[in-house]
Amino acid sequence: MAAPAAGARFERVLVVGVGLIGGSFALALKAAGLCGRVVGLGRGRANLEQARALGIIDAIAAGPQAAREADLVFVATPVGALEPALAALAPHLAPGTLVTDAGSTKRDAAGAARRVLGARAARFVPGHPIAGAERSGAAAASAGLFRGRRVVLTPLAENPPEAIAAIEAAWSACGARVSRMSPEKHDEVLAAVSHLPHVLAYALVHEIAARPDAAELFGYAAGGFRDFTRIASSHPEMWRDICVANRDRLAAELDAYGAALERVRALLAAGDAAALERLFAAARAARERWLAGEYE
Amino acid sequence: MAAPAAGARFERVLVVGVGLIGGSFALALKAAGLCGRVVGLGRGRANLEQARALGIIDAIAAGPQAAREADLVFVATPVGALEPALAALAPHLAPGTLVTDAGSTKRDAAGAARRVLGARAARFVPGHPIAGAERSGAAAASAGLFRGRRVVLTPLAENPPEAIAAIEAAWSACGARVSRMSPEKHDEVLAAVSHLPHVLAYALVHEIAARPDAAELFGYAAGGFRDFTRIASSHPEMWRDICVANRDRLAAELDAYGAALERVRALLAAGDAAALERLFAAARAARERWLAGEYE
Repeated sequence: MAAPAAGARFERVLVVGVGLIGGSFALALKAAGLCGRVVGLGRGRANLEQARALGIIDAIAAGPQAAREADLVFVATPVGALEPALAALAPHLAPGTLVTDAGSTKRDAAGAARRVLGARAARFVPGHPIAGAERSGAAAASAGLFRGRRVVLTPLAENPPEAIAAIEAAWSACGARVSRMSPEKHDEVLAAVSHLPHVLAYALVHEIAARPDAAELFGYAAGGFRDFTRIASSHPEMWRDICVANRDRLAAELDAYGAALERVRALLAAGDAAALERLFAAARAARERWLAGEYE
Repeated sequence: MAAPAAGARFERVLVVGVGLIGGSFALALKAAGLCGRVVGLGRGRANLEQARALGIIDAIAAGPQAAREADLVFVATPVGALEPALAALAPHLAPGTLVTDAGSTKRDAAGAARRVLGARAARFVPGHPIAGAERSGAAAASAGLFRGRRVVLTPLAENPPEAIAAIEAAWSACGARVSRMSPEKHDEVLAAVSHLPHVLAYALVHEIAARPDAAELFGYAAGGFRDFTRIASSHPEMWRDICVANRDRLAAELDAYGAALERVRALLAAGDAAALERLFAAARAARERWLAGEYE
């Protein structure tokens, strides 16, 4: 089977892990008229049945051998499940079949592909749609999830340009803004702006929930707390995997952040009101620039 | 002038600081039919003019002597401005005039009232509507801001019961759920669920903004980051005052949180995936219970 050209239609798509991301990718490709039949593979039978009932997938795969029929395989499992998923798929991948993923960490994806796909790693183009939500499961999927969102591809040196272009075209058809980055840079950037905030939110809620007066404390938590901790409602297994896969970068971010908190602590101890106000004002100004799209 | 009974109408209200909170209180009292004329006093002439144009206030006060005509004075300035505001109002307060405030810290409010109001501190009932927003100014005010929100009153020992009841009735008329607490307990609770998260959000944005690759980092920040840092768009002067006024409790919260982050750091270093997942799952479960209203 020849590799599909950029923008080409995928006649048969296999989605492994039909959750928010996998399901939304299927719906978006369908909405763009870019795919024929979508088959879903996953651990949860009820979720797959629901995905079929919702028209997200057309059939439930009997097993990884379904990859034989596919011209595109999209692996959207928690990142810790990527390597076993690729290993199970490997014997069934046709030479022309393209494979991509949706994992939030990318150094480990490259390593996993090389370990279990061998020469076929050249057909695996790692990607990361930056479009999480604290909701999960097929029922949360929507065709518009990726519209205007960023997707980062972290191609392997052995990926032929047309394979990268085909994955890029699929994401563009979903409405995403696609860019390319090294896996190392990706993991560094995401540790700072995504993985760290998730851990900070989880840690805050966990720390408060563990106190004897937790009920009273939560009783006075308001809108600011709700938004600050929204990402603490994210999927624990998914975030466990992300944290483990990116633990060196995340630990470095925790250290940098801990040092920043120590500086705030010192300003408080000194009662340095002017410096606190400068810090808060600088943060607000930076956030306003970000919201205004100055960093797009 | 006799103290208004609980639920009584306030014929003349003076709002000092006609921002989001002061303006919303005026609008809510008006909507409840609980007040006659509202006069506004503040630093920013343009904001006061806008408040008058929007019907939030009926007139702009020439100065603190406007308190002479008021049966209720609502001080909604940043907490650092409460003591000078009360000091300026003190010579003009009629014996029956009730005074309350909206500050996010309450030990300092009690101290300020006793220092500058003397015996008239008995007419000052400190309060805190927990209804902040990152928006500020009269233009952001709305009659419904306090609907369903908590207002904490931290009465002074010298407040007569009818004074507390009158302020409680005013807030209830605004749709708020009113409760009472000691100033010490209030500052402890709010340090954990409000002041700490604000500082954490400011510190994260500030730390990222200060990096050489800040533009790239912000370029890949998404919805999780946006919600996590929403409170970093809060008013810097207001939060400077809160942090300074509550610095001992806030420092204790920073220490507790720093220790919690150290524990996460240790789990990462050990690659303890199971413990990380348990922590994340416990945090998510606690947050879901909170969202479900189990701590109301």
